[in-house]
Amino acid sequence: MTRTIGVTEVVLRDAHQSLIAIRMAMEDMVGACEDIDQAGYWSVECWGGATYDACIRYLNEDPWERLRTFRKLMPNSRLQMLLRGQNLLGYRHYEDMVVDKFVEKSAENGMDVFRVFDALNDPRNMARAMAAVKKTGKHAQGTICYTISPLHTTEGYIKLAGQLLDMGADSIALKDMAALLAPQPAYDIVKGIKDTYGDVQVNVHCHATTGVTLVSLMKAIEAGADVVDTSISSMSLGPGHNPTESLVAMLQGTEYTTNLDPERLVRIRDHFAAVRPKYKAFESATLVDTDIFSSQIPGGMLSNMESQLKQQGAGDRIKEVMEEVPLVKADAGHPPLVTPSSQIVGTQAVFNVLMGRYKVMTGEFADLMLGYYGECIGERNPEVVEIARQQAKKEPITVRPADLLTPEWDALVEATSKLEGANGSDEDVLTYAMFPTVAPGFFTTRDEGPKNVGKTPEQMAAEMDAAKGASKAVTGPITYKVSLGGRDHSVTVERA
Amino acid sequence: MTRTIGVTEVVLRDAHQSLIAIRMAMEDMVGACEDIDQAGYWSVECWGGATYDACIRYLNEDPWERLRTFRKLMPNSRLQMLLRGQNLLGYRHYEDMVVDKFVEKSAENGMDVFRVFDALNDPRNMARAMAAVKKTGKHAQGTICYTISPLHTTEGYIKLAGQLLDMGADSIALKDMAALLAPQPAYDIVKGIKDTYGDVQVNVHCHATTGVTLVSLMKAIEAGADVVDTSISSMSLGPGHNPTESLVAMLQGTEYTTNLDPERLVRIRDHFAAVRPKYKAFESATLVDTDIFSSQIPGGMLSNMESQLKQQGAGDRIKEVMEEVPLVKADAGHPPLVTPSSQIVGTQAVFNVLMGRYKVMTGEFADLMLGYYGECIGERNPEVVEIARQQAKKEPITVRPADLLTPEWDALVEATSKLEGANGSDEDVLTYAMFPTVAPGFFTTRDEGPKNVGKTPEQMAAEMDAAKGASKAVTGPITYKVSLGGRDHSVTVERA
Repeated sequence: MTRTIGVTEVVLRDAHQSLIAIRMAMEDMVGACEDIDQAGYWSVECWGGATYDACIRYLNEDPWERLRTFRKLMPNSRLQMLLRGQNLLGYRHYEDMVVDKFVEKSAENGMDVFRVFDALNDPRNMARAMAAVKKTGKHAQGTICYTISPLHTTEGYIKLAGQLLDMGADSIALKDMAALLAPQPAYDIVKGIKDTYGDVQVNVHCHATTGVTLVSLMKAIEAGADVVDTSISSMSLGPGHNPTESLVAMLQGTEYTTNLDPERLVRIRDHFAAVRPKYKAFESATLVDTDIFSSQIPGGMLSNMESQLKQQGAGDRIKEVMEEVPLVKADAGHPPLVTPSSQIVGTQAVFNVLMGRYKVMTGEFADLMLGYYGECIGERNPEVVEIARQQAKKEPITVRPADLLTPEWDALVEATSKLEGANGSDEDVLTYAMFPTVAPGFFTTRDEGPKNVGKTPEQMAAEMDAAKGASKAVTGPITYKVSLGGRDHSVTVERA
Repeated sequence: MTRTIGVTEVVLRDAHQSLIAIRMAMEDMVGACEDIDQAGYWSVECWGGATYDACIRYLNEDPWERLRTFRKLMPNSRLQMLLRGQNLLGYRHYEDMVVDKFVEKSAENGMDVFRVFDALNDPRNMARAMAAVKKTGKHAQGTICYTISPLHTTEGYIKLAGQLLDMGADSIALKDMAALLAPQPAYDIVKGIKDTYGDVQVNVHCHATTGVTLVSLMKAIEAGADVVDTSISSMSLGPGHNPTESLVAMLQGTEYTTNLDPERLVRIRDHFAAVRPKYKAFESATLVDTDIFSSQIPGGMLSNMESQLKQQGAGDRIKEVMEEVPLVKADAGHPPLVTPSSQIVGTQAVFNVLMGRYKVMTGEFADLMLGYYGECIGERNPEVVEIARQQAKKEPITVRPADLLTPEWDALVEATSKLEGANGSDEDVLTYAMFPTVAPGFFTTRDEGPKNVGKTPEQMAAEMDAAKGASKAVTGPITYKVSLGGRDHSVTVERA
C-alpha cells in the first residue's frame, strides 16, 4: 500500500538562484549529473530566467549549450524549466509567435517539463505558452502562485487549477516562492484539487525561508500530492528549499516513500558541499524569517521600501508605509506580492506616504491599475483607476495584454542578424529577444568560453567586488519593461 | 474545538548550548526575560549541566545566582531544568542524599520543572531524582531518550513511559537529542502513551540537525502531544532547535494553537539577533546533517573515531570501524549512542579494529559490560562479559550502580569548607561536588563578578583563541568519571 512520491531536484536551478545569486557555473554541475540522473528523481529542474540571464551576463556560457549538455549528461531524466508565461524568460510580454518559437526550440534542445506561471495568476498570460508546450508533446505544467490576501481562498486556487486543466495542463504546480504556504492550506488546496478534478498530478514547490514548509510538504503529501520539490542538503534551507534527504527521512515508516537512491544522494551532497565554498561571496545571510506571516510583506519588498525611504531622508516613516501597503494592494485588486507586483505596490505606497495618496503615481502602478499587466483576483478601486487614467493619459484595457502586440519575430531575426558573433540560429534570436542589452556583448565574447573555470573563492570574491554595479543587475535592482499600447514602460525594482 | 499546545522556550539553555558552545552570559539574557515571561510559554528552560559548568568555568557567574535572577525576572513562568538523574549535573553517579540535596536547593532557588533523564534509559538511575522532585512538590518530568536500534520499539518506549509514571511523573518527555525522531515514530510513540495511560501530559523535545523534526512535532501534536520545545528563530536550526515562530506558523488554520504573543516573539527574536554576533567565534558550522539516519552513528561520535584513528596513523580504516560499531553496540545490549555510551562504544570499536576484537578493552567498556553504568535494553553478550570480567578483574553487578556508593554529603561539606572563597552554603557544596576541579578556582574569583560583560565579538574571539585548551573541556573532550566498587574509572571522550 506504499505510495511513491516523486521528487523534483532543484539544485541545478532554483537552489543556487536562491542561495548564491544564480552564480553556479556549468563546470561545477557536470560532475554531479550522472548521480542526479541515476538517483530516481521525477524530474530535474535545471533551467529558467535567472540562470539564463546569469549565463550570458556573468559566466560567458551559452544557456542553450548548457541545456544540451544537461540533456546529454542526464539521458534518463525529465529536464524541467520554469517559464514566466507570456514573459518567457525576459522582462516584458512577448508576441505569441515568439512564445511559440521559444517553447519549440527549448523542447528541441531537450526540455521535457515546462512549469508555466504568471505573477498575477492571470490564466490569459499562461494560455499561449501552455498551448505551445502541448503542441510539442512535452509536459505542460500549469502553475498556481500561492499568496495570502483577503481574496485568495482555497476555492479560488482550486478554480484556477481547473482553468489550467482546461488549457490541457498535464499537471498542476502549487508554487510557494515566499515560503508562505502553511501546512493546513497546503493540505486543503491539494485535497481540493484532487477531490474536484480526480486523479490530476499535483506538484508542490516551497521555499524554506519561514522554516515551516517541510511540514507543508508532509501535509500536501497526505492530501495526495504526487511530486514535491527539494534540494540536496548541501544546497538547501534559508531562502532555498527543504533538503532532499530530510524529505526522505520524513517519510520513514509512513505509507509513502521516495524510492530515491540514498548512496547517490550522499554523492550529490558531497559534490555540492565541495563546490559551494567557491561562491561564498554570493551567499545569502538569511537562515529563517517568519516576519512575512504577520506583515504579509515579503522580506525583499520591505528592504526595498526601506532603502527608498532612506534615499528620501524619511527612514523613520517605514511604519506608515507598511500600513499603506495593504491599502494600495486592495486598491489594485490584491495582486500577489511577488516580482514585479511587490515592487510596483511598494513603491506606490512609499510615494503615497511621502507625497499624499496617489498625488503622484508611477507609470507602472498606473499600468497595473489599467490592466496592462493582466487581471488581478479582485476588482480595482474605480476612483484610483480614474486617477491612473488621467495621470498616465491612457485607457484601461480588459483584453489580454499580449493581444495588443504586433508580430515581432521577423524584426527580431533581422536585428539579431546584424549583431557581431550571432550565429544565425533561432536560439540566438531568442537570447537577443529576451536580453536585448546583454546579448550583444555575450555574442562577441562567446567563443572565449566559460569564465570562472577553476577559480578560487578569493578570486570569485574579488570579481564580485570589482563588478558590484553589474552584480546588482541580478542580485539587486532590475529594470522591468513592458512595451504595450505603443509606449514603453519601465521600472527599476529590487528583486523579491 | 481548538486545542492549545504548550511551548517550552529553550533559548536560555539548550539553544546556546547547541549553537554557541554554551557561552551566553547572563548579561545577554536579562534583557529578554520580561518578554519571555509574558509571551505565554508553558515553561522556560534555563538551567542544566553544561550551562552550570560554563558559568563557573568561563563566565565567573554563580549558577545559583543565575537561577535566582531568572526567578526574579520571570515571576509568571515555570522555570525548567535538565537533570541527568543520578549524575545530577556532573560526570559521575552521586549518592542518594546528594541527589536529594541538589533537588531541594534547586526548588528552593526557584526551579519549577525538573526534566529527569538517564543516557541508558535505566529507570533505576532516574528513580531517586524523581522521588526527590516529588518531595518538593515541584513538577517531575520523566524522560525517554529516543534512539534507533533493532531492540528499540514503540512498545518499549511506551513501557518506559509507564515505569516513569509509576515513579509519579507529572509528565513524560520524549527527548530526541540527535534529531533522529522521524514523524511517524513521533506519532506512534505519543499516540501509544496517550492510548495506554490516558490523559498524561506528553512533552516533545527535538533538535533540528536532520532538518525533519518540525514535521515530527506536527505529527506528535496530531497524536496528542501537549507541549513541544522550540527556540526563538534568531537562535534556532542547525544543531539547535526548530524556530518558535515557525511552530506558530505551522499551526495556522489547524485545530491547534500556541496562544503565544506574536509581538513578544518579535522582541525576543530581535534581542537575541542583536546579541548573537558577540559569540560568533563559538558558532557551530553544521546547517543540516542527515547522515545519522543511514549510518546510525551520531556526527560527534564519527568525528571522534576519525580523530582516534588518525592519531594511530590508521585514518584509512574508518569504514571498518563503522562496520564494527553495530557489533560492539549489540554486544553491549544496544545502549543508545549518546554521551557517554557513544564514546565508550566508539573507542572500543576503534580498539577492536586496530588490535583485534576485544584483545584490549577500555576500562569504561568493561564497566559498561559489567553493569556499572546501569542496564541497557538488550542482553549483553556473555562471552564479552566474561572477557570484561577477566580484564577488569571485577564482577558484574545487577544492582542499581548508586547502591554501591556510601554516604558522601558530610565529606563534601567538610571538603568544601576548606576551600578559599566558599561561602558555607549548601549550594557551594553542590558546586564543588559536581565540578571538583573547577569549583575551587571559581570560588576564589567569584567576587570579581561576571567576565565578558560588554565584550566585542573580536575580544571574545581573541579570548577563545587564548584559551583553546580550556575551551576544549566543554566543546571538545571531557573526562567522564565513575567511582564505583572502590575504584575510580575515567575516560576522556569527545562530547556528542
